[in-house]
Amino acid sequence: MTRPDHSSPRDAGRAADVAEDGFLALQPWEPEDAAARAARKRTQIQRAAIGVFLQHGYAGTSIDDLAAAARISKQTLYKHFAGKEELFLAIISDTVGQVLDEFFESIDTRLDDTSDLEKDLHALASRFIRRIMRPELLALRRLVIGEVGRFPQIGEVWWRGGPARVTRELAPQLARLADKNELTLDDPVLAADHFNWLVLSVPLNAAMFQPGVHFTTAELDNYAAAGVRAFLAAYGPSARR
Amino acid sequence: MTRPDHSSPRDAGRAADVAEDGFLALQPWEPEDAAARAARKRTQIQRAAIGVFLQHGYAGTSIDDLAAAARISKQTLYKHFAGKEELFLAIISDTVGQVLDEFFESIDTRLDDTSDLEKDLHALASRFIRRIMRPELLALRRLVIGEVGRFPQIGEVWWRGGPARVTRELAPQLARLADKNELTLDDPVLAADHFNWLVLSVPLNAAMFQPGVHFTTAELDNYAAAGVRAFLAAYGPSARR
Repeated sequence: MTRPDHSSPRDAGRAADVAEDGFLALQPWEPEDAAARAARKRTQIQRAAIGVFLQHGYAGTSIDDLAAAARISKQTLYKHFAGKEELFLAIISDTVGQVLDEFFESIDTRLDDTSDLEKDLHALASRFIRRIMRPELLALRRLVIGEVGRFPQIGEVWWRGGPARVTRELAPQLARLADKNELTLDDPVLAADHFNWLVLSVPLNAAMFQPGVHFTTAELDNYAAAGVRAFLAAYGPSARR
Repeated sequence: MTRPDHSSPRDAGRAADVAEDGFLALQPWEPEDAAARAARKRTQIQRAAIGVFLQHGYAGTSIDDLAAAARISKQTLYKHFAGKEELFLAIISDTVGQVLDEFFESIDTRLDDTSDLEKDLHALASRFIRRIMRPELLALRRLVIGEVGRFPQIGEVWWRGGPARVTRELAPQLARLADKNELTLDDPVLAADHFNWLVLSVPLNAAMFQPGVHFTTAELDNYAAAGVRAFLAAYGPSARR
């Protein structure tokens, strides 16, 4: 039942590497290709699984559903994931990780060398809010929150890889800006939390309770700008602390 | 199968009014008592249902479960609620409504006559955060968010009765404070949103993803105080807007 799936555009260029199982068994042993192939297979399974989890919920999804969606056998699924929980945790960890990797890639250097802090914080906040407000990420966030009571580990993985990571990586950046008198703060962790939620909270909470709500990019930019203005009033160089 | 339940302490004083169904049928017609009795029955069913919904999730709860938990027949349940959705919507509406009714009861007069805005806003924020962080309300909030994708009306009722109501009732209060030069703001709705989330976001988001997390009253007060300080730095009389 195992069928290589070449349908993903990202894999199209590598289609030549992915032979039928039977044919591949006749090839010389190439450890890197095997690892790359396994990684690709895991990604393929995870991509197919997201849709199933979002449609049926975590509790309502069976291993049979997941194998069918990925067009593989249950045996093949179990070769890559110990079970439903490991697969779901991998989805959360990779999805949240990827969103924040992209986000943090660019901020290190920019904020340290800033000549216009409000402008650079606004640019950062806009990138941040647009990433977090992607519809699929919002749907996954709702699903995770809904399952936290019964499966606390799911929430823990989201929390550590998401909001807690934002605070952890942003706090030292803000502390360095305070060292240069660009900000005024006693508690960089609290300041990072306030930045995070001043920017995100209004549209994010609206979206948590209203799946049909849609914010334009301009609206999200306005929330980012308003959040940054409030943040700088509270933590800027001339803020009364 | 219909059995009056006198076990609620709140109903103890009225136990004499609540006779067996058969006996009640022989009493003279008393419309107020019948209405009061129906309201009490609805409350009793809702209280029993909260635990079932929290344990099994919305989708995982059946009418049979709900009737069994309330120790009534399905027929009796259907006399009071058209079905599972109406019962759940009543729970959300009443729970969120009650929390915010208690909260808003006291703020009207106090803020208008304030002689120490930071102190009064801090008292208000502390009361607010303690109410919102009640474990059962947090669990219900997680459940609602988790079901929003499949049952948008559930999220709509929470949103309108909860966060949107806070903004709606707080914004004119803040606008009046601005008229008296106690605050500096162009957009009372945005200012109310910022107040709300500056106070709540840190512990509330932590609790959404970590059911085991516990904040002491002192910790919640600190978040309230820090949120109010940041809010007043952004929107206080001497804020740069």
